[in-house]
Amino acid sequence: MAKELKELTKRSTNYSEWYNQLVVKADLAEQSDVRGCMVIKPYGYAIWEKMQRILDDMFKQTGVQNAYFPLLIPKSFLSREAEHVEGFAKECAVVTHYRLKTNETHDGVVVDPNAKLEEELIIRPTSETIIWNTYKNWIKSYRDLPILCNQWCNVMRWEMRTRLFLRTSEFLWQEGHTAHATREEAEDRAKMMLKVYADFAERYMAVPVVQGVKSETERFAGALDTYTIEAMMQERGTSHFLGQNFGKAFDVQFLNKENKPEYAWATSWGVSTRLMGALIMTHSDDNGLVLPPLLAPIQVVIIPIYKNEEQLAEIDAKVAGIQEKLQGMGISVKYDNADNKRPGFKFADYELKGVPVRLVLGARDLENGTVEVMRRDTLEKETVSLEGIEAYVEQLLKDMQQNIYQKALDFRNAHIYECDNYDEFKARVKDGGFFLCHWDGTAETEARIKEETQATIRCVPYGYEQTPGTDMVSGKPAKCRVIIARAY
Amino acid sequence: MAKELKELTKRSTNYSEWYNQLVVKADLAEQSDVRGCMVIKPYGYAIWEKMQRILDDMFKQTGVQNAYFPLLIPKSFLSREAEHVEGFAKECAVVTHYRLKTNETHDGVVVDPNAKLEEELIIRPTSETIIWNTYKNWIKSYRDLPILCNQWCNVMRWEMRTRLFLRTSEFLWQEGHTAHATREEAEDRAKMMLKVYADFAERYMAVPVVQGVKSETERFAGALDTYTIEAMMQERGTSHFLGQNFGKAFDVQFLNKENKPEYAWATSWGVSTRLMGALIMTHSDDNGLVLPPLLAPIQVVIIPIYKNEEQLAEIDAKVAGIQEKLQGMGISVKYDNADNKRPGFKFADYELKGVPVRLVLGARDLENGTVEVMRRDTLEKETVSLEGIEAYVEQLLKDMQQNIYQKALDFRNAHIYECDNYDEFKARVKDGGFFLCHWDGTAETEARIKEETQATIRCVPYGYEQTPGTDMVSGKPAKCRVIIARAY
Repeated sequence: MAKELKELTKRSTNYSEWYNQLVVKADLAEQSDVRGCMVIKPYGYAIWEKMQRILDDMFKQTGVQNAYFPLLIPKSFLSREAEHVEGFAKECAVVTHYRLKTNETHDGVVVDPNAKLEEELIIRPTSETIIWNTYKNWIKSYRDLPILCNQWCNVMRWEMRTRLFLRTSEFLWQEGHTAHATREEAEDRAKMMLKVYADFAERYMAVPVVQGVKSETERFAGALDTYTIEAMMQERGTSHFLGQNFGKAFDVQFLNKENKPEYAWATSWGVSTRLMGALIMTHSDDNGLVLPPLLAPIQVVIIPIYKNEEQLAEIDAKVAGIQEKLQGMGISVKYDNADNKRPGFKFADYELKGVPVRLVLGARDLENGTVEVMRRDTLEKETVSLEGIEAYVEQLLKDMQQNIYQKALDFRNAHIYECDNYDEFKARVKDGGFFLCHWDGTAETEARIKEETQATIRCVPYGYEQTPGTDMVSGKPAKCRVIIARAY
Repeated sequence: MAKELKELTKRSTNYSEWYNQLVVKADLAEQSDVRGCMVIKPYGYAIWEKMQRILDDMFKQTGVQNAYFPLLIPKSFLSREAEHVEGFAKECAVVTHYRLKTNETHDGVVVDPNAKLEEELIIRPTSETIIWNTYKNWIKSYRDLPILCNQWCNVMRWEMRTRLFLRTSEFLWQEGHTAHATREEAEDRAKMMLKVYADFAERYMAVPVVQGVKSETERFAGALDTYTIEAMMQERGTSHFLGQNFGKAFDVQFLNKENKPEYAWATSWGVSTRLMGALIMTHSDDNGLVLPPLLAPIQVVIIPIYKNEEQLAEIDAKVAGIQEKLQGMGISVKYDNADNKRPGFKFADYELKGVPVRLVLGARDLENGTVEVMRRDTLEKETVSLEGIEAYVEQLLKDMQQNIYQKALDFRNAHIYECDNYDEFKARVKDGGFFLCHWDGTAETEARIKEETQATIRCVPYGYEQTPGTDMVSGKPAKCRVIIARAY
C-alpha cells in the first residue's frame, strides 16, 4: 500500500489524474468492459447508500412517496413535449429487438431478425414522459392532487467520453415527479426540494452550495424554471418547475373546485451518483479520500500494535469493550486485527479510504491507559486517555463534520470573485472559482462567453445582494450579477 | 367504494380475475403503456420497500455488501458459459443503436442509422456474466476471497403474456453473487442464503415454505444445484451453487494457500417483486388485501365518527395522544379525518388495502372511554377500553402476524397429499396443492408429467422423512418423494 500510495498523483500536479486514481484506489468504482458503464464497488456503494437513506427520509418528511415506473419508453413519447425532445432525444440507448437465437455454428448468439419491435423503445434518460403518461389515468379531480412521487433508479444517456461518477452513460439517481392543482403550489414544491438538496449538501456532504436559478439556455428541457444548487466542484442538484407543459403534452386534465377542466402543473427534481464526484473532489487530499463522518461507511477504525499473541489477546479484550460502546452510540467501528498486513499498510489504506478516526492501541498504551487518536481531516495525532474515549470520539466526529464543512466553505468563499472586466475574466476563469459578473440576460452574450472561455452561467444566485450594472461582455445594462464558472 | 368493492370478483369464482382486480383496486400496481412493464404504485412500492429493508439487513448480517454492476451486457458475454446461454439467451431486450435524430418533417424522432453499435448490448436478464467478468480483476489470491456482493436492481426478460408482479418483462429484484476459495464454502453459502429466504418468508411474509433442491431440468441455467423455497402460491426464492462454471468461463483464477492457481467457486441467489404476488395470493380474501402487520405500510388506521365540528375537535384531540404513543412504539398509524369521504367508504377502502387494525372512535366512545377495534385478518370487531389501547394494539398486531401465518400453514398442510397413483394424480392436481410422489429421477418421467398435466417438480423437499418407493408414472424404483404441483 505504501507503494501504491506513492503512485497516487498529487492533486496539485494533475487534478484530473489525481481524481481518477483516487476513485479506483480507494475502491469506490471502476470502469466496466461495457462502454460508458461503471461498476460501483462495495465501498463506494456504501457511501451512496448512506446518501440515499438520508435523502429518502428527507423526501418522505415532505410527503413524498416512492414508486417505480418502466425502464423503457416508447420512442414516440419523447416527441410529445417539443422542447423536451430537443434537449434529450439525441444520445439514447435504443432497443430494437426482443430476442436472440443461437448462431449457425452453435458457438454464439445473434439477434433474431424476426423479433423486431414495431416501435423502438428507449432506455429512460429521464422519466417525465412515461410518468406523465401514467399520471393521466391517476388524475381526474383536484381531490387526486397533489401527487408526490419519487423513484430511485438507473438512467442512461449515451456518452462518448466518460469519467467515473462525473460522466457515465448509465448512472443511478432519484427523480421526483409531482403534479399539482395550481401554479403556485408547483413552484413552491420546486423551491422546497431545492432547499432539501441544499440542506443535504451542507449538513451531510459538508459541501457549501449556492442556491439559484438557471438561465434559459441552461434550463432543463421542457422547464419554465430550473432551480439549482451549485457547488464549486462541478456537481449540482436541480429542481424544475415544468409549468403545464407535460400536463398539456400528455393531456393530464383535472376538474377543479369549480368543476372546470384544467391542466395539471408539474415539477421534477433529481440528484445522482454524480454527487459522489462532488463529495470526493471537495474534501480529499494527496493521501486519498476525506469523508465527512456522517457519510463514512466506517467512522472509526481501531488498529492494534503487538509483539506477540499474548499482547494481542489483551488488546482484543480491551477493544471489544470500546467497540461495543461506540456501536451502542450509533458509531460504525471496524477493528482490524488481521495478521497478514503490517500496521503501516493498514494506516495508509484507511487514510486512502478516508476513514475519519483511527485509534491505535499498543501494549504500552494498555499499561498507560492511553490510545493514539488520528483524525483524517487534519492528519493530527494525539494520545488521549482510554477512560472516556467513546465520548471523546463522538465529540471528535461532530467537530470533524463541522471542520470539514468550514474548510470547504472558506475555500469556496476565497474563490468567489466579483469581476467587471471581460479580459480579466478570460485570464482568470481557467484557474477555477466562481465569478460574479453582471449579465445582460441575453442568450447571445451567454453563448459568446461559453465559446470564448468554456465557462457557463451556473445560476442567478439567491441570497446575494444585487445591484444593477453593466454587462462586462456586451456593455449593455444588466439587472444583476450571475455566477459564471468553468467545470473542474 | 362500496360500489367498487362489489365489483371485486370473488376469489372462489375466478381466482385469476380476483387477483388481477385486487392488485389494481388496492393501488399496488398497474400495467403501463409499455408492453410487459408494470408501474408499481406508491402503496405497492411501500410494501416492497419494507421487504427490501428487512432482507437487506438480513443479508448484511451474513457479511454481504451491496454494489452495482452495469445494466447492459455485451452480447458475446452471454455465450461464454454454454449452459447459461441455452437457458437465458432467448427472450431479451437488445440495444442496437445509441442515438436518435429529428425526423424529416420535424415532428418526431427516428433512430439514427449511423449510430449502430458494433456489438449489440443486452439488458441484463441476470448478471452472472457481467459480474464474473468484473470479478476476474478483483480476485488474484485466496486472500481476496470470499467476495460477497449483492445488488438491488431491475432486470428484463421479454414476456409475451404478463401478469402484474407474477410475470412481467421488467421486474425489480436483488441478486447476490459470491465467489469462494472452496467448493464447500460456496455450497454452504448457497444453503445459508436459502435459509435467509425461508426465514424471511415465514417470519415476515407469514408464508410457510418448503425448502428443497430442484431437479436437474428445473435448475438455473449454469448451476450444479439450485436450492429453493416453495410456497404453495407459486412464488419462490432460489439460491444456486454454480460450481466453477463461471470461474472457468471468465477465467477467474486465484492463487491458493499452496500458491497454486485454482478457479473460484460461485453462488448466486435472488428474490424479486414476484414475492409480492405470493404475499397477495396467500393471505387475501374477497374483501381485498390482507397484509401481515410486519409488512404493512399502515399498520393502524383511526377513523372518527362525528356529527359536528365540536365532536370532531374532541376526537382529534383524543386521537393525537393515541397516535403519538403508538408511533413512539414504532407502529405506523394513519388518522383519516378527511371530511369528503363517508366512514363507510373509508372502512371499505382500508379493508381493500389490507390495513391490519382499524380503530373507530365516535362521540359516544369518548363518553364511555371505549373504542371499536377491527382486525383485518378475521374481520372481527370488539369494543375495548381506551385506557391502555396502545398496548392492546401492539399485542393484537403480534397476534395477527402469528395468526396469519398459522392460517396459511394450516391451509398448506391441508393441501399436501401423498399420492401413489398417476390416474388419481391427474384427476386431482388441477385443483391445486402439493403432491408428494415417488419419482424415478429421470428427465423423461418429469417431461411426461409436465406434458400430460402441466405440473412440474417443484423440489426434492428437505426435512421430510423419505422412504424409497416406486415411481407412480414409470413404475421404476424411486429413491424419494418429490413435490409436484401446478402453478396457481
